[in-house]
Amino acid sequence: MRAAVMHGAGDVRIENVPDARPIEPTDALVVVSRGCICGSDLWPYRTMEHSDTGRRMGHEAIGVVEAVGADVRTMKAGDVVVMPFAYSDGTCVFCREGLHTSCIHGGFFGAGDGDGAQAEAVRVPQADGTLVVLPVGADDALVPSLLTLSDVMGTGHHAAVAAEVGPGKAVAVVGDGAVGLCGVIAARRLGAERIIILGRHPERIALAREFGATDVVSERGDEAVERVRELTDGLGVHSVLECVGLEQSMLTAIGITRAGGAVGRVGVPQDETMPASQPAFYDNITVSGGPAPVRAYIEELLPDILDGRIEPGRVFDRAVRLDEVPDGYRAMNDREAIKVMVEP
Amino acid sequence: MRAAVMHGAGDVRIENVPDARPIEPTDALVVVSRGCICGSDLWPYRTMEHSDTGRRMGHEAIGVVEAVGADVRTMKAGDVVVMPFAYSDGTCVFCREGLHTSCIHGGFFGAGDGDGAQAEAVRVPQADGTLVVLPVGADDALVPSLLTLSDVMGTGHHAAVAAEVGPGKAVAVVGDGAVGLCGVIAARRLGAERIIILGRHPERIALAREFGATDVVSERGDEAVERVRELTDGLGVHSVLECVGLEQSMLTAIGITRAGGAVGRVGVPQDETMPASQPAFYDNITVSGGPAPVRAYIEELLPDILDGRIEPGRVFDRAVRLDEVPDGYRAMNDREAIKVMVEP
Repeated sequence: MRAAVMHGAGDVRIENVPDARPIEPTDALVVVSRGCICGSDLWPYRTMEHSDTGRRMGHEAIGVVEAVGADVRTMKAGDVVVMPFAYSDGTCVFCREGLHTSCIHGGFFGAGDGDGAQAEAVRVPQADGTLVVLPVGADDALVPSLLTLSDVMGTGHHAAVAAEVGPGKAVAVVGDGAVGLCGVIAARRLGAERIIILGRHPERIALAREFGATDVVSERGDEAVERVRELTDGLGVHSVLECVGLEQSMLTAIGITRAGGAVGRVGVPQDETMPASQPAFYDNITVSGGPAPVRAYIEELLPDILDGRIEPGRVFDRAVRLDEVPDGYRAMNDREAIKVMVEP
Repeated sequence: MRAAVMHGAGDVRIENVPDARPIEPTDALVVVSRGCICGSDLWPYRTMEHSDTGRRMGHEAIGVVEAVGADVRTMKAGDVVVMPFAYSDGTCVFCREGLHTSCIHGGFFGAGDGDGAQAEAVRVPQADGTLVVLPVGADDALVPSLLTLSDVMGTGHHAAVAAEVGPGKAVAVVGDGAVGLCGVIAARRLGAERIIILGRHPERIALAREFGATDVVSERGDEAVERVRELTDGLGVHSVLECVGLEQSMLTAIGITRAGGAVGRVGVPQDETMPASQPAFYDNITVSGGPAPVRAYIEELLPDILDGRIEPGRVFDRAVRLDEVPDGYRAMNDREAIKVMVEP
């Protein structure tokens, strides 16, 4: 079968790889109907050292179950499923607490030796604990929005939960990528009164406004901090969704958080240390977040998508075939596209 | 009047200073019955550059109201009061949220131009919002425990709250100073099932056990992390109270936190950056805490002290007169004493 393999910075190739197949009795084989390219895929796209064997890419998918191992109970061939970016057994102590990304028997797609979902098919370990069967066909108009349950919508929601968003609160979203935009949806959904998006890309900002952003701050760094404080009587916002992962974005996030407020970070941190430890301390700012246990959030978010109350699929502004995935990376890296869907 | 003035590292002097007196109509003048030396006073004691004018020290006190300004309503001359380490108006947006350390009209004793409480008397701004009248005499046997409401008991409690301690949880306390020991009391009080104290000083450890610690880890660094993980099925603890403030203690704190757990930090951070940002992220560890709004906690903790359910005053293992305060600093810095009470 064909799959995307990254061999180094800027070097994504579509290659023939061994066909995916169930190995363990708890595996499922899923034929990918829709995959996508993630903002987090751009970190290795910018920095990865050359590798001859390369790294299989992609961790988001909706697909059709082709075969299941002998122990799989909750799905059968032909079912349409959504695949979270992490696999998890659904039964361990962490899964029971809703932290599926720390599953004792879990792992991540498109990392290590596992399959990637920018491919024709993917082997899904721990299928019962990982996949969720969807009540729609693989070509349903809702598929783009449902596909965001794999990662970006669940991740935006996680940022909002970690940032303690709630009714009446003032919220800021740092980052206008797909996760940040889904964070706007999540913040509005959780009752935020005011949602300030930090960004300057006209199309992303327009979408953020449609998703519920009430204010836009296009400044950066200290000027952004000053502007957000102006908008909030000098106090800052209760909740900040940090959806970038750079030192500068974290500095900004802490700088705009109101005393006693919280930063929910979902941008993969690129530095070993966190800046502004002392200001965060003196203002009693909570820093929370991490890889989103999107599996835990699907039950909560799915009805809102099925009923049309939220439309996170609008973050996809480009679709490519598998052969075009390398250009999809380029387009996202050049900020030509917000998020690229892959139709193998 | 006489007061402790720090002129540089290791240089604390008892000097004659202008008498404290009410200036604003919201002030009270409090004659100090008992003050103390704080672990946080040891940071400048170790590092302060020489200053001719010096810095007034001390931010914890129980005392007797000597005079009040025209606008003070909740106390009168003769009342015995406890003084939190921060003053606060009790009415601003942050005070109403219980974050008195961020009071818009607030500040800290023993910092900047304000009075310190290692003195014969102290001017207390915002007296109505700051001081709490106690239902005991200034020489009551409960005074040492009540004095900890000024800082260390409220701070230990804040660490436990920030670390999300609750019934059935496994907790670790990093730091065996007075705040760490009060953190043990707080963790037990909030229902922790297991309380691991990290420390090696025999007398402190013995007191920690009496306060409710169930396990002691005397190793440091990576070995301490390994030992705590051994004690917790490899998972780590749900809640860590970080009561030191050094890079190494924060590294340990994050290293022993279970995925999805929380670090409540109350040790004043000595570094601009926080270590282990990436491990904390990947394990979805929350870092919270800061200067404790001890004023907010007095109503909750006071009944437990009055009824003898908790005895945080046992952290005082030495008492000095005002003239002996310099030696009190030395004793705490040499770890001869856990916490020194000052009887002016």
